[in-house]
Amino acid sequence: MTNKKEIFAGIIVIGNEILSGRTQDTNTSTLSIWLNSLGIKVQEVRTIPDSEKIIVETVADLRKKFDYVFTTGGIGPTHDDITASSIAKAFNLKYGPHKEAMDILEKYYKPGEFNKGRQKMAWMPTSAELIYNPTSGAPGFNVENVFCLPGVPSILKSMLGGITHKLVGGKPILSQTINLKTVESEIAKSLSNVQKNNKEVDIGSYPFFRAGKLGVAIVLRSDVQSQIDKCNLEIIKFVKEKNIEIVEKD
Amino acid sequence: MTNKKEIFAGIIVIGNEILSGRTQDTNTSTLSIWLNSLGIKVQEVRTIPDSEKIIVETVADLRKKFDYVFTTGGIGPTHDDITASSIAKAFNLKYGPHKEAMDILEKYYKPGEFNKGRQKMAWMPTSAELIYNPTSGAPGFNVENVFCLPGVPSILKSMLGGITHKLVGGKPILSQTINLKTVESEIAKSLSNVQKNNKEVDIGSYPFFRAGKLGVAIVLRSDVQSQIDKCNLEIIKFVKEKNIEIVEKD
Repeated sequence: MTNKKEIFAGIIVIGNEILSGRTQDTNTSTLSIWLNSLGIKVQEVRTIPDSEKIIVETVADLRKKFDYVFTTGGIGPTHDDITASSIAKAFNLKYGPHKEAMDILEKYYKPGEFNKGRQKMAWMPTSAELIYNPTSGAPGFNVENVFCLPGVPSILKSMLGGITHKLVGGKPILSQTINLKTVESEIAKSLSNVQKNNKEVDIGSYPFFRAGKLGVAIVLRSDVQSQIDKCNLEIIKFVKEKNIEIVEKD
Repeated sequence: MTNKKEIFAGIIVIGNEILSGRTQDTNTSTLSIWLNSLGIKVQEVRTIPDSEKIIVETVADLRKKFDYVFTTGGIGPTHDDITASSIAKAFNLKYGPHKEAMDILEKYYKPGEFNKGRQKMAWMPTSAELIYNPTSGAPGFNVENVFCLPGVPSILKSMLGGITHKLVGGKPILSQTINLKTVESEIAKSLSNVQKNNKEVDIGSYPFFRAGKLGVAIVLRSDVQSQIDKCNLEIIKFVKEKNIEIVEKD
């Protein structure tokens, strides 16, 4: 990468349901793809249980390591939703009803329906900045560089547009995939040489088995298109020499 | 949980392709469900890049924190497969061709096909114990409490049976799910009371939207069936009082 100042993010997935295997996390890839498009590289994902102590420690650790931290999960109304109170603790801030969030939720519900359970969704660090939720009312929030989002994938997705202006990214990370009808061990040496000649490009090699086809996807990633193009040409060269078939893109 | 000695595991998912959002990790849930059935609770998952420094640090950290650590990814033949050499470094062990792994792969391939790229798959800490691979030959390995598995989900799955005898688990963790046609804020207070009365049971509440149905899944987890049964009865009681419909299991 020639981007002198790379921008890094960490993701904290909060939830026993992910650790037990009951629920398949999909928010990581949603966040990563969106952050990539803003020139922000996800460098670490930590999935942790609904434990205040562990949330506080993990937030304290990652917010120093990375430019931005995103948490998913644990901001609903039930007893196992402890992200907001844990973030208040991590930043040593007052936890209580957030004035603007209370206003939003009061308007969102019909008169008389804004019960205690729902009011809990407005409890957070009282000085937090809100992240608006166009899907179901209850806002997320950020404190400094830590952005707290819900766990429900469709709601999380709908809230990303409201964060973009708060982030300063780098150059978008570009990628190109070349799918080959071969096995990794046939191309390992040649590919290693291409990587040595092109240190600025991140070259990944991923075997695939799909629709009865066996092959290798080579993924080139850089923030400079010309570097990807140069790398691509060198790969096409050895692929032709070895009589390896290029298959359609995925 | 009444299990006096709980057994914990950590998972390290190694791969730029997961962090970029290109590939959806599914190995975490495969490993978690399998470990749960052995009475081993996954306490943390870290997804990290293909970086020797980060792999070494993460392995050093997690192998002290947990009884068992599982790594996925990075043990293939290409230049970006650096898990085996990093594990050798983390344990300060010799990295080189593993005698038994070389024998296995030599027999697996046709004469003359066991080329340099393929030989790399037998390079690992030379004193490692092998984990056999019934799908594609190339073995995984373990050093002490760290078990290294491939990233391809179907291959990983096929190798788990060969590890079970190396693990000492606790009581299997039991779970029960009650699906309700309601929203979380309607049941938050009652559910919180049930949790207070049943501290030994881990009660999770997860909103769902599927097949046009909106509801809440309540998940009860414990290693003692009678505790789950007691909790279940208390939930059914308030559900009936509130006239909430129970919907079919997922």
